[in-house]
Amino acid sequence: MVQQQISVVTLGVDDLARSRPFYADGFGWTPVFASDEILFFQMNGLMLGLWLKPKLAADMRRDADGEFHAFSIAHNVPTAAAVAPLMERLAAHGGTILRAADAPPHGGFRGYVADPDNHVWEIAHNPAWPIDEDGHVSFGT
Amino acid sequence: MVQQQISVVTLGVDDLARSRPFYADGFGWTPVFASDEILFFQMNGLMLGLWLKPKLAADMRRDADGEFHAFSIAHNVPTAAAVAPLMERLAAHGGTILRAADAPPHGGFRGYVADPDNHVWEIAHNPAWPIDEDGHVSFGT
Repeated sequence: MVQQQISVVTLGVDDLARSRPFYADGFGWTPVFASDEILFFQMNGLMLGLWLKPKLAADMRRDADGEFHAFSIAHNVPTAAAVAPLMERLAAHGGTILRAADAPPHGGFRGYVADPDNHVWEIAHNPAWPIDEDGHVSFGT
Repeated sequence: MVQQQISVVTLGVDDLARSRPFYADGFGWTPVFASDEILFFQMNGLMLGLWLKPKLAADMRRDADGEFHAFSIAHNVPTAAAVAPLMERLAAHGGTILRAADAPPHGGFRGYVADPDNHVWEIAHNPAWPIDEDGHVSFGT
């Protein structure tokens, strides 16, 4: 049973200093985490991430100059073992695996699958980010 | 005070019959609403929409063949009167107004603003979709 849940929406950005005022002053939102390459905002049961485009493209294994739409949506699963089977099921129903599941440097386990229109889903296990029974995801470290 | 809340993630699709198995059978999710042009899934405090690309492009006032990334993120506000002031504040902080706020045929009130990287936010009031104090959005009719 896969929760009907979006864990993260990640938008690729060229310049965090340029983007931050739009989110922090335009919307008036406060980041829960900021580094020199990524900002996270705790939203209503999911995260909004702003990540430098080349980093996002490399993580997705996409060419940043090609069919790259500079955004991804993550669905997080409760265990690392649940990542690959869900990716395979998506591939069996019209998806394309962009990156087989492996362990990123920041921890956890993840892979990427494109839907039939090339929208990219990250299927991930992130042990640091709790998900409650209603599917609401919280930032953790 | 603008809630830190995403109300809808809308993905543009070419063919609903092609996309539906990816979501309904791959992820195993059940739509809460389906018509011949749009599918909605009730997620963890927000909606996931799959909408025919030409309809989404027209709604955003974008050229479907141009710089069109076939997705939008909605932030819903509690009143119609709150839509335009937030759009103006976003425009004052690096955003570009794509479509001034007006009333769509399906009801409510909305406009579109692109962020500095051309990611498109719909700022909307939808009286049919309740938002609780935690920012969790529910499908309603």
